[in-house]
Amino acid sequence: MTPEEKVAQLGGYWIDQGDEVVAPMADELGSSTAYEEASRHGIGHLTRVYGTRPVDPIARAEWLWGEQRRLRGQTRLGIPAIVHEECLTGLAAWKAATYPTPLAWGASFDPEAVHEMARLIGGTMRELGIHQGLAPVLDVIRDPRWGRVDECIAEDPYVVGTIGTAYVRGLQETGVDATLKHFVGYSASRAGRNHAPVSAGPREIADVLLPPFEMAVRDGGARSVMNSYAEIDGMPVAASAEHLTDLLRGQWGFDGVVVADYFSVLFLQTMHAVAASPAEAARLALTAGIDVELPNAEAYAEPLLELMRTGGIDEAIVDRAVARVLAQKERLGLLDETFDAAPRSADLDGPAHRAAARRLAEESVVLLSNDGVLPLRSPQRIAAIGPNAASAEALMGCYSFANHVLAHHPGVEFGFEIPTVLDALRSEFPQSEIVHAEGCDVEGEDRSRIPDAVAAASDADVAVVVVGDRAGLFGRGTVGEGNDVESLELPGVQRELVQAVTATGTPVVLVLLTGRPYAIDWALDAPGAPAAVVQSFFPGEEGAPALASLLSGASVPSGRLPVSLPRSAGSQPYSYLHPILGGPSEVTSASSAPVRPFGFGLSYTTFSHTDLRVDGAAQAGDSFRATVRVRNDGERDGTDVVQLYARDVSASVTRPVAQLLGYARVDLPAGAERDVVFDVPSTRLAFTSRAGTRIVEPGTVELWVGPSCAEREASAVIELTGDVHVVGSADRRVTDVAVLAAVPIG
Amino acid sequence: MTPEEKVAQLGGYWIDQGDEVVAPMADELGSSTAYEEASRHGIGHLTRVYGTRPVDPIARAEWLWGEQRRLRGQTRLGIPAIVHEECLTGLAAWKAATYPTPLAWGASFDPEAVHEMARLIGGTMRELGIHQGLAPVLDVIRDPRWGRVDECIAEDPYVVGTIGTAYVRGLQETGVDATLKHFVGYSASRAGRNHAPVSAGPREIADVLLPPFEMAVRDGGARSVMNSYAEIDGMPVAASAEHLTDLLRGQWGFDGVVVADYFSVLFLQTMHAVAASPAEAARLALTAGIDVELPNAEAYAEPLLELMRTGGIDEAIVDRAVARVLAQKERLGLLDETFDAAPRSADLDGPAHRAAARRLAEESVVLLSNDGVLPLRSPQRIAAIGPNAASAEALMGCYSFANHVLAHHPGVEFGFEIPTVLDALRSEFPQSEIVHAEGCDVEGEDRSRIPDAVAAASDADVAVVVVGDRAGLFGRGTVGEGNDVESLELPGVQRELVQAVTATGTPVVLVLLTGRPYAIDWALDAPGAPAAVVQSFFPGEEGAPALASLLSGASVPSGRLPVSLPRSAGSQPYSYLHPILGGPSEVTSASSAPVRPFGFGLSYTTFSHTDLRVDGAAQAGDSFRATVRVRNDGERDGTDVVQLYARDVSASVTRPVAQLLGYARVDLPAGAERDVVFDVPSTRLAFTSRAGTRIVEPGTVELWVGPSCAEREASAVIELTGDVHVVGSADRRVTDVAVLAAVPIG
Repeated sequence: MTPEEKVAQLGGYWIDQGDEVVAPMADELGSSTAYEEASRHGIGHLTRVYGTRPVDPIARAEWLWGEQRRLRGQTRLGIPAIVHEECLTGLAAWKAATYPTPLAWGASFDPEAVHEMARLIGGTMRELGIHQGLAPVLDVIRDPRWGRVDECIAEDPYVVGTIGTAYVRGLQETGVDATLKHFVGYSASRAGRNHAPVSAGPREIADVLLPPFEMAVRDGGARSVMNSYAEIDGMPVAASAEHLTDLLRGQWGFDGVVVADYFSVLFLQTMHAVAASPAEAARLALTAGIDVELPNAEAYAEPLLELMRTGGIDEAIVDRAVARVLAQKERLGLLDETFDAAPRSADLDGPAHRAAARRLAEESVVLLSNDGVLPLRSPQRIAAIGPNAASAEALMGCYSFANHVLAHHPGVEFGFEIPTVLDALRSEFPQSEIVHAEGCDVEGEDRSRIPDAVAAASDADVAVVVVGDRAGLFGRGTVGEGNDVESLELPGVQRELVQAVTATGTPVVLVLLTGRPYAIDWALDAPGAPAAVVQSFFPGEEGAPALASLLSGASVPSGRLPVSLPRSAGSQPYSYLHPILGGPSEVTSASSAPVRPFGFGLSYTTFSHTDLRVDGAAQAGDSFRATVRVRNDGERDGTDVVQLYARDVSASVTRPVAQLLGYARVDLPAGAERDVVFDVPSTRLAFTSRAGTRIVEPGTVELWVGPSCAEREASAVIELTGDVHVVGSADRRVTDVAVLAAVPIG
Repeated sequence: MTPEEKVAQLGGYWIDQGDEVVAPMADELGSSTAYEEASRHGIGHLTRVYGTRPVDPIARAEWLWGEQRRLRGQTRLGIPAIVHEECLTGLAAWKAATYPTPLAWGASFDPEAVHEMARLIGGTMRELGIHQGLAPVLDVIRDPRWGRVDECIAEDPYVVGTIGTAYVRGLQETGVDATLKHFVGYSASRAGRNHAPVSAGPREIADVLLPPFEMAVRDGGARSVMNSYAEIDGMPVAASAEHLTDLLRGQWGFDGVVVADYFSVLFLQTMHAVAASPAEAARLALTAGIDVELPNAEAYAEPLLELMRTGGIDEAIVDRAVARVLAQKERLGLLDETFDAAPRSADLDGPAHRAAARRLAEESVVLLSNDGVLPLRSPQRIAAIGPNAASAEALMGCYSFANHVLAHHPGVEFGFEIPTVLDALRSEFPQSEIVHAEGCDVEGEDRSRIPDAVAAASDADVAVVVVGDRAGLFGRGTVGEGNDVESLELPGVQRELVQAVTATGTPVVLVLLTGRPYAIDWALDAPGAPAAVVQSFFPGEEGAPALASLLSGASVPSGRLPVSLPRSAGSQPYSYLHPILGGPSEVTSASSAPVRPFGFGLSYTTFSHTDLRVDGAAQAGDSFRATVRVRNDGERDGTDVVQLYARDVSASVTRPVAQLLGYARVDLPAGAERDVVFDVPSTRLAFTSRAGTRIVEPGTVELWVGPSCAEREASAVIELTGDVHVVGSADRRVTDVAVLAAVPIG
């Protein structure tokens, strides 16, 4: 291969870019060379050919097949391009299914449902000739002020790791490569500001932020990884061989391709100032281990070629990346594909998609409070109030095609069904009169329509007030990429709307459609609070029917908070995974106690957890069993999320006061009880020692099961015995906290 | 020495403890043995014999001398005790002078004034038989939510280091040992919550938090160091040999004594859970390098003796600490002292104290805004309004004797003069009628007295509204140890009071007496803001006369912000020392821009900075000169704080967009100009490399002088040439950015 042919494989080209802005600084950083010129020697990736404009997927596939044939036939080496797309909440293409946002996946505590969703997403992608999806996001939530929290799964690394790995497996079973992002540290930026420096030591990185990536690489076999924009303690990850090569490949055995987060190679010069030129940025990134520059080749183009010509880079470093890209193309079958026949149809949003979207939406709704108003009992008149009541956009995350792309194309239809909450209420309550009043916008100070909403509520039997976020990017919307906040109050005047409606005396069901948890103590614990509060993280195309069925009682709430419900922005950062002094203590007047804890969620029935039994002891490094009796004490069938927590009582470094060890969704008919058996590798309690190795220490560990991280309903103790166990590759994979059984009793 | 005699030297005893609470958990953690028993074999330290209750210092000295004679004559070895006291804002003893709080020292940018203050404080301590002072606090401010910000000097490590070193030199010149605290990391706790975990990597610790300690040890010759309560990345510093021994002694050559922050040895068990018992806590702390347990020997008592008996600790570790304590006592002359004659008098608050307190108070007041109302022009009627107008407590920090100890003794007089702002206004404006209205309290929701304040203001020519903090500890007060906040609004309803008074149309001079910077954009940049805003960090016993003289124009403001004036609690943490992405950027909607930047402060005259000249190049590691012309452009004589900033344009790790290189207070008559010459060791630009060593890199450095970190008034560029310079002990001390000259021009 000539130097030009090599370098060509290391970059992408964003065909449609420039027509509209869908990424930060796309205008400034758009490719400066024409596509024909850029692909003369071949091309590594084609960037978002479906996901940049509202193009008909079938028509675009026809173009794409032709383009691949051109690369095959009219470049010297005849190597087709990898086609990558965003696919976080479904394939980001016009008319394709839009699923719940990842924070909702977390709330479902259901890896199986996420696996099924990812399999369906991958199926569509495969039909359309897409080889790589830029998902899942495995950043552990560290600060709800950050705008990208809606793209994250949870504040617990194990939940992120198990659900993220399920996504990886689902997608990759269809032959589409998953991309783990953002490796690593992105979510821990200072004050939740996007791209801001990360203040964290190596132990916090290793014990909190890295585990989901390790699980998805080692257990999930993920085939691609995307670097984080972040700098950690002064060192941009994009230039860190320690992370991108030594850890990822050396320790974890990753043998796929590392792709750059968009523009992040050039950011080494322009944003981090650790490179003085694009060539130096290219040298740093490529040497660290970024194989492919996205979205366009800019540093990995002429600047890299010039480096090669002048001996400014060891050519073996270039060859290493080229070999990885070619190996990926070979494995994907690209080198043998002839691209004869473009697809004439694709399953963009068929019945299986709708069913999977519905399941996940329903499972992810979290009931935060309920004075008995729910489920609704055939109300004669329902007032549907709030800026999100009749908004389809409010059901979708920031990486949905609708909010990411169509926002730039006013008037273009979604191309798929997405009933609003108002629509769904009309379907769910055909006997009821439904009146609608927006009350206010999501953003802004306009209070002029609040009186109309108050009037509508006054005449109704119940008011369903739907407020929250509007997902968007970089200043458009209230949450999403770049939409970081310094306040965790509901945006705009929505709190005033809720309180005005509540003051009418009409029972209020507050429905939050949001992309982050907000500080809503006033809606939960204060006098005059709404009768019920329902939290739904952007639930996708079937979200509104799912919500309506939960309100009517046709289905029963089972979602749990995947993130602490914060007190305030001024109390951030906070994580439930804190050592003693990270929580409320005698030595600080500033409380950190969340308004509702991680794992919390009500249902229409109640569950009790008793008789936690564990083996009395286990060798450090071995597994142990924990069995708990779970009972549905109510009169409705329901689904419990059984949560097993642990606390290492004394260790050589500080350890959290609570750590989720394992969880299990368990269906339980009214009155039924089951024994749930967890088979726990003690490596779930491993941490990074003072010496920097990952160990399991002998000692006492408290275990408990409860309705959230904050409450111990059934407790036990286990002694880990023997010597300190150094975790190694022979250890059982931590993804496998097997739920051995949910045994019916009696 | 017997084991009992050895261990006796390693602990303190807090005689008066239990009578009242002056420290957190003093009740729970008070010594469980009687003094006679505890000192049978001698005693290492006597804890706060003057600083715990309002005892007459001369009477207490008489007791102390007797007690030292008893230790000398009636213990086998006859070793007297080290007597230690708090002395941060002056000796914490009844009737002793109370100086401005450290944040005011920072605002003065005047190491010389701090040196003089510390010399006077040390003089009093020496007279009273006190050997060691638990000051200065060298924690670099990282988050204004933290309650102990008023004990800190600045958010810039170099300002902390230079002023802190001046304090050390002043105190130690009198023969009293200074104690550097809190080594290290305390100020960077999560969300500013006291004792909360520190998320920081080794580079941030080394480049931001450690330099003041290094300066005070290496350049200041500090003789004692106190550990931080903090855990950094999971590792409590109290158990960290890496910090307390390897770095402090091994790299910096410290040969003094490391004392425990109060209760922090036991906290290894109870708060950090890295020890399972007091004995294990003792072993960890002693092995790490904590020589003396304070305030009482608890772990370093029977638990340590038991360890020695059972071989649970290497006796050499014990001997090492004992030798250090004995060496300190020998150096202090204690082993030869006979304690024949207790002092009959002491200079507790004589004229030199008053003058030094006045100087520092005056130099530290920061004028934040002024529409011309200041200086006041012989107003006929002045309304003195606000909860801090007639409060002496509001002039003092949380470690003042008044706020720390006397708060528990209502009715006991301060024992020294401390006029309030109201008193001082009456003295400063004898021709004016002064009316007074409190308006509201510092805390609480009581608005009932706001109308009286409004009425008083309405009838006046000017309203001086004095609001802010009340310093205290652990829930008493609004700032101080344990008084962390999740909001940076002024406490209580004080903002409402200010706005109600401002709405009268009477010109308002807002005076803030606070211990932290608050979010006061509404008072500075909004329509209807006060005519002038004056920020004074607890200015001490002469603070009110100093303020009054600044208001009248008898003196001229010269203080500068030692800390950024924050936007909001939700935008924290923030530091002016941020790399590009730590500040406002295109990729986040959450601004971090402070309301006023570090270094900002107005005067009654204006200064211009022009013609910055630097050597064009210097070898990395060498020094260079920077000369700037400073001119007093106004009609009043004044004092400028000339601030030289730098930015390393491109480096191997991310570097701040602005870094204070050096500063100089320069007196300038009206119309005069001077050349100020900075002689800068390029090691001021050193940072911790990717490999973990401290280096100066070659490359381009922008330099500028401006009225704050945010404004470039005169700029230049210097090229650092040659090879990477590894900083070593042969390098010039960084404390010495010599201001070679302030040369009058023409």
